Amino acid sequence: MIIQLDSNITTLQKEELQKTLEGINYKGNQVATQFGDYIVAVGKKDFDIRSIGIMAGVKDIHKVSDPYKLVSKKWKVNDTVIDLGDGVKMGSGHFSMMAGPCSIESEKQIESTIEHLVDNGIKIMRGGVYKPRSSPYSFRGLGMDGLKMWHAKAKEAGLKIITEVMMVEQIEAMAEYIDIFQVGARNSQNFNLLDALGEVDKPILLKRGISGTINELLQAAEYIFSNGNEKIMLCERGIRSYESAYRNCFDINAIAMLKEKTHLPVISDPSHGIGVRAFVEQVALASVMAGADGVIMEVHQTPEKAFSDGQQTLSYKQAGKTYQKLRKTFGMREEFKRL
Amino acid sequence: MIIQLDSNITTLQKEELQKTLEGINYKGNQVATQFGDYIVAVGKKDFDIRSIGIMAGVKDIHKVSDPYKLVSKKWKVNDTVIDLGDGVKMGSGHFSMMAGPCSIESEKQIESTIEHLVDNGIKIMRGGVYKPRSSPYSFRGLGMDGLKMWHAKAKEAGLKIITEVMMVEQIEAMAEYIDIFQVGARNSQNFNLLDALGEVDKPILLKRGISGTINELLQAAEYIFSNGNEKIMLCERGIRSYESAYRNCFDINAIAMLKEKTHLPVISDPSHGIGVRAFVEQVALASVMAGADGVIMEVHQTPEKAFSDGQQTLSYKQAGKTYQKLRKTFGMREEFKRL
Amino acid sequence: MIIQLDSNITTLQKEELQKTLEGINYKGNQVATQFGDYIVAVGKKDFDIRSIGIMAGVKDIHKVSDPYKLVSKKWKVNDTVIDLGDGVKMGSGHFSMMAGPCSIESEKQIESTIEHLVDNGIKIMRGGVYKPRSSPYSFRGLGMDGLKMWHAKAKEAGLKIITEVMMVEQIEAMAEYIDIFQVGARNSQNFNLLDALGEVDKPILLKRGISGTINELLQAAEYIFSNGNEKIMLCERGIRSYESAYRNCFDINAIAMLKEKTHLPVISDPSHGIGVRAFVEQVALASVMAGADGVIMEVHQTPEKAFSDGQQTLSYKQAGKTYQKLRKTFGMREEFKRL
Amino acid sequence: MIIQLDSNITTLQKEELQKTLEGINYKGNQVATQFGDYIVAVGKKDFDIRSIGIMAGVKDIHKVSDPYKLVSKKWKVNDTVIDLGDGVKMGSGHFSMMAGPCSIESEKQIESTIEHLVDNGIKIMRGGVYKPRSSPYSFRGLGMDGLKMWHAKAKEAGLKIITEVMMVEQIEAMAEYIDIFQVGARNSQNFNLLDALGEVDKPILLKRGISGTINELLQAAEYIFSNGNEKIMLCERGIRSYESAYRNCFDINAIAMLKEKTHLPVISDPSHGIGVRAFVEQVALASVMAGADGVIMEVHQTPEKAFSDGQQTLSYKQAGKTYQKLRKTFGMREEFKRL
Repeated sequence: MIIQLDSNITTLQKEELQKTLEGINYKGNQVATQFGDYIVAVGKKDFDIRSIGIMAGVKDIHKVSDPYKLVSKKWKVNDTVIDLGDGVKMGSGHFSMMAGPCSIESEKQIESTIEHLVDNGIKIMRGGVYKPRSSPYSFRGLGMDGLKMWHAKAKEAGLKIITEVMMVEQIEAMAEYIDIFQVGARNSQNFNLLDALGEVDKPILLKRGISGTINELLQAAEYIFSNGNEKIMLCERGIRSYESAYRNCFDINAIAMLKEKTHLPVISDPSHGIGVRAFVEQVALASVMAGADGVIMEVHQTPEKAFSDGQQTLSYKQAGKTYQKLRKTFGMREEFKRL
Repeated sequence: MIIQLDSNITTLQKEELQKTLEGINYKGNQVATQFGDYIVAVGKKDFDIRSIGIMAGVKDIHKVSDPYKLVSKKWKVNDTVIDLGDGVKMGSGHFSMMAGPCSIESEKQIESTIEHLVDNGIKIMRGGVYKPRSSPYSFRGLGMDGLKMWHAKAKEAGLKIITEVMMVEQIEAMAEYIDIFQVGARNSQNFNLLDALGEVDKPILLKRGISGTINELLQAAEYIFSNGNEKIMLCERGIRSYESAYRNCFDINAIAMLKEKTHLPVISDPSHGIGVRAFVEQVALASVMAGADGVIMEVHQTPEKAFSDGQQTLSYKQAGKTYQKLRKTFGMREEFKRL
Repeated sequence: MIIQLDSNITTLQKEELQKTLEGINYKGNQVATQFGDYIVAVGKKDFDIRSIGIMAGVKDIHKVSDPYKLVSKKWKVNDTVIDLGDGVKMGSGHFSMMAGPCSIESEKQIESTIEHLVDNGIKIMRGGVYKPRSSPYSFRGLGMDGLKMWHAKAKEAGLKIITEVMMVEQIEAMAEYIDIFQVGARNSQNFNLLDALGEVDKPILLKRGISGTINELLQAAEYIFSNGNEKIMLCERGIRSYESAYRNCFDINAIAMLKEKTHLPVISDPSHGIGVRAFVEQVALASVMAGADGVIMEVHQTPEKAFSDGQQTLSYKQAGKTYQKLRKTFGMREEFKRL
Repeated sequence: MIIQLDSNITTLQKEELQKTLEGINYKGNQVATQFGDYIVAVGKKDFDIRSIGIMAGVKDIHKVSDPYKLVSKKWKVNDTVIDLGDGVKMGSGHFSMMAGPCSIESEKQIESTIEHLVDNGIKIMRGGVYKPRSSPYSFRGLGMDGLKMWHAKAKEAGLKIITEVMMVEQIEAMAEYIDIFQVGARNSQNFNLLDALGEVDKPILLKRGISGTINELLQAAEYIFSNGNEKIMLCERGIRSYESAYRNCFDINAIAMLKEKTHLPVISDPSHGIGVRAFVEQVALASVMAGADGVIMEVHQTPEKAFSDGQQTLSYKQAGKTYQKLRKTFGMREEFKRL
């Protein structure tokens, strides 16, 4: 049960509400975000929610039977729009493309990527400065120095930055240099990290766990929302399966289902979703037809020389065509609404 | 290694070829299909294939390193087209839609389905008369009587029939009443059935196994081809995964990869691929963007009353819209080739 | 619901029963096996089964809520014992070891295996004469000629034979030369084959499907039982997983759970269950501790020269030690019952 | 390649070594642990390691082709023994049993558990004070207050404590109250946490990821070792599969294979490994036969009232019998070595 509170609710009215909830054995979790105040009430007894709906200080009340609450579409029918400023919006009819290298490698690489993105009208650049690697002996990213260098160049070019954050201690330092925090698949249930990202007023792109369920992804997002941050995007990036012909099994079903279950934007990552360069475009286009609000892709001037993920990275030339097709496919999907 | 033989190769020339193969420790498997004669030679030693290519009776010779041979694109660059007659063609630029109920239930149901299909310009009707069911106590289909009734109605309406065959003994009796034999996921590695279907001159739609790999699917198709039948379509119908939010996990990656690995048409089954009615359309559209040559879907006048699979079956009204969108999506994919 | 019938029930009494079942909208499936007559009644309404229990001709009646019925432990508390004759019994306290090569290859190989088995007190020899192979170009077994040769030698040595049957047409010819029909993982839901094996009075060892669920395995066994054959063993042989360090993932949980769900003997196949020779013994021993009634293993005089599955096949020397440890482990498990 | 260094190696000698490695394009990672100094050299070129082996300051040198290095058995044939003090040792012939509740709930619960453990001769108590929960609204543990209370009681009773750490910031505060840090399945690839635990001189029990591969688990352990801590145990706790009859699929194969690949102790967690109380014992016993060096289990005075995981938790009475059987099974396994 989600209780939306009036912005001018008094402390006394809040206490009254909590008392009422206790009376019916519900636990009321207070949530205050950038956009509103809520009580998420969890309990077992069924009762007439109108009795609470009419209490002073209550704006609205909704039953939400899902295991996730605030991220559910059951109480918020209008899809969330995330505004990055400078006219860059994500979700609900705004189609987003994010592209860039797996790892930020050098100044030269940054410049080259930016040129490519600007030429193609792409507004958000991806890249890793903290890299989760299976082996401790692998390249683990350029860290804050790389991020600062990147930020300076990107700002100049008018590009937004999305990059992965791996631990609570990094958040504060990174915040002023990035536009979107990415949570990687391996941290999808790093609950302390999610808690902390709920306390930041920055958009979060949350990747599905390596074998995460759709429910787990939504509950992970609930951690962020319930800690105060409503600016969340979900990202399908392929799941682990028995099939060895590709790196991950892109879960096209999840794209379609997430769009029904949540009001949050849903982004697809076809690069990790199949892991083989030659097929990234087809998976990207398919994900748009299934309902994705955006796509995040790996591109590199010379994919075969990339520090990481080269085998799934597009060249600039390939990517240029893919952007075009993505825009057209999104256009057709929008037209379909009118059929 | 695939050796294509001249149509007028002599017995002596064949013996000569076999002798040469034996000399280099290759096993030569003779294959004769509706369309050609081949020797599939399997061995380990590497050698200059031109030495065989110049032998009398040899039309062409190709190295194929894949575990499957005749179904590989490595030797046959042009995609296979399957002609059902009456202008109905499948594969290579011909987009196919197949629709109908999970089970054939009654004369009335057949008539209603046919009317729906004809109204929507659909040429191929699906339906099961032999049903593989987990429990021996479930409805197992109307059998040959149902098929004959269906065939009479479909022929009158100018529709083609696709239906599942479950065992070798059924093939002969069914052959004259059907246009395409379907092999179900549970029989995807029923090698005796595949052998027998290789001896029939009817198109086969071969479904991927419940947890079949892409390689296993292609090798299963190789059984059919190597027994003499080149008219094969492959069908992605979702694989088993840990996710319980849907019935199967539609493997969009497989669509894209199969189109690269084989010259055979690739069909998607979004109904089984997600198993939830509300999302069948999105998966269908996505599969077209990924490269599918056609779609097979479950429709029913009253899905909630269907004998089986109701939860994933579209109503006529829903399906009507889906057909339209599928055609437009395919049209756009064709346009993309010119970008 | 399972209704056990008196052996001298009259036709009239049966009709009376069926009428009563129809009256409450239950479908009554008649089952006659080697050991008894049953009606498996399937329906939705809940009612007092005693009203049927007291009818003439009814020996006993049981509610069974599982999707499988006759193979459930809910109505038959005492575990099934399968008697192969000559003092060889399986299930319920009789520990069974079956061993032999993957494929029957030659007379010499048969003789060598028999000598090894006799030396070690093993009573049942395994081996394949019909081999399901992923590729049509692989060795597919010696067929009936191989079986006859094998049977002659095995009989002489007092050994029982277990071998795989792949299609309905093979059953009759094979029946007189074998003691146990094995159904392979790929045919675990080949329902026509299961139906036909239900009509034979020979024990069946039914393997779990490549990604079969526990419920599917039990329902597959229900096909055999409901067609008339109660002599069924279930076999865990590893399931498909994302892990590539081994061939299959041996499902130790399934052993423990199957022993609770069914009265049928449960056999483990550690050779396929891990697929790596060095670890077969540990998996075998573990399966006994989890409750297996027996083990089926691949052994070969020279595993590295075996026609198939060499990498998971034990040498005679290794196997000899494994048999000893298996017997001791089973002995300890039996002792544990008294704790 | 692992280079073991002399304890009295000079700075100059180290520099010399690094220069030599650079000369052959190897990256030399310096590692200093409680027990030794190493250089883990990673590169591509093959060369005669003896040329480095003879250099001043080098104790020994080993080629290790595995993706993990220091945790591999390839260079350290003798299994690691972890000494907790007071005669409690783990690994290499010391069989360890750890038991306790999922969550630490109250003083009374702690006392009751301790009594049960002492009565049964169990030396290590498990329990969670920081709980990773799918939903932010679930009970998340008693935190440091709970840990301090528990520590006081456990110390009095002579018991060792194992409990989960979830984030870097918790390590220091927790260290003086615990004997073993547990890393949960969801943090199995939380590389920053692993880095930090490498800097502590406390044993770590590292659980396999929810769908972690065996290689990933070993590489995660490599993070800890290469940061300075050799006291690591690996824990198999079941993997995610398509089967819904149980919570996780206990990977018995992994137990057997890990014992071959690494010198670290391998612990089994049958409680999570199957997730159903009735079968925990069988899985536990099986894991010992497969080679486990110890078992960690959930027990509770009243499992049905436990705050979490009640369905997989043993009662004291059940657990008491299981401990006995585990000891006997381990004893038999030790005897088998002499066969």
